[in-house]
Amino acid sequence: MEQVLFDYLAQYIALNADEKQAIIDLNIFKQYKKGDILLSEGDHSDEGYFVIKGCIRSYFIIDGEEKTTAFYTEAESLEPHCKITKKPSAYFVSCVEDAILIVANSGMEETIFAQFPKFESLCRILSEELLVKNQTDFDSFKTSSPELRYMHLMENRPDLLQRVPQYQIASYLGITAQSLSRIRSRILENKA
Amino acid sequence: MEQVLFDYLAQYIALNADEKQAIIDLNIFKQYKKGDILLSEGDHSDEGYFVIKGCIRSYFIIDGEEKTTAFYTEAESLEPHCKITKKPSAYFVSCVEDAILIVANSGMEETIFAQFPKFESLCRILSEELLVKNQTDFDSFKTSSPELRYMHLMENRPDLLQRVPQYQIASYLGITAQSLSRIRSRILENKA
Repeated sequence: MEQVLFDYLAQYIALNADEKQAIIDLNIFKQYKKGDILLSEGDHSDEGYFVIKGCIRSYFIIDGEEKTTAFYTEAESLEPHCKITKKPSAYFVSCVEDAILIVANSGMEETIFAQFPKFESLCRILSEELLVKNQTDFDSFKTSSPELRYMHLMENRPDLLQRVPQYQIASYLGITAQSLSRIRSRILENKA
Repeated sequence: MEQVLFDYLAQYIALNADEKQAIIDLNIFKQYKKGDILLSEGDHSDEGYFVIKGCIRSYFIIDGEEKTTAFYTEAESLEPHCKITKKPSAYFVSCVEDAILIVANSGMEETIFAQFPKFESLCRILSEELLVKNQTDFDSFKTSSPELRYMHLMENRPDLLQRVPQYQIASYLGITAQSLSRIRSRILENKA
């Protein structure tokens, strides 16, 4: 399990045996079942998630209806707002599939930063990359029609279309399940 | 000019006189005129911006049409994607008003990080906060109707509605200028 994490980190920094052991000693690998809820609206939580295996999603419940805002799969990380802002969570996080996650809180991060300052550089670099990814996704969402958004998803995240229920994909694209179904038929017709 | 920056940074870390002088010595304060273009599609640039005074915006040109994606005003910072990814910029950045900006490149950041490691902590914290802000904006955009988006903007960024041309606000909200005008009339009628 550790190897997935170390392979990921190796893209950014070289870790020696002591540094790897310090991570292992934190005991941060956790297993979850499909449907498990990691975070609920109103929760105060200080935990961030890094996906080793599986898929988790964030969603709001607005007027009784779920609105999915993001999916996170292998080697993606989610820092919930409440961890950074110290305010109650505005949304839910749950497991779309059985999952193995790294779950780390701010205290663990500070312990590691004090022991190995290079982890702080790493976290800065990862935050900057996540920021760019998030902005790119937002820009693309804002400048695309729903049909283009779906085609973009087919191109860039074809795995999600297999792994995630249709109604969650629809709300992730900002449309109704009926609109998604119409878009899919239109694309299939054009291909035929 | 420096004081705006130091007041902002004081929310996060205490800087001593040497650290303040190191920032001043970087010679990073620049003045621009309304309409100046800081970054164009296709540019390779290694510069990030922090707004001391004024307003800048990012926009795409798609099929000959401008699509505004973000505005940045006093004490907000923009790290263009191309700075992080080292790829050509996909969008433009220009000045909506005359502006005083801090313009810093990665080389300057590394000089400062090496001299004063606490700046790296600061940048990590700022990146994490920017990430949360961006995700919050994206979540709100995705889960709101255009009318709610406009009401949200009136509530949270009333200054923008005064400072920015209507057509830029419309594309920022993901709608046409005509739709924005209808939404505004509807809201005024409801208030009357």
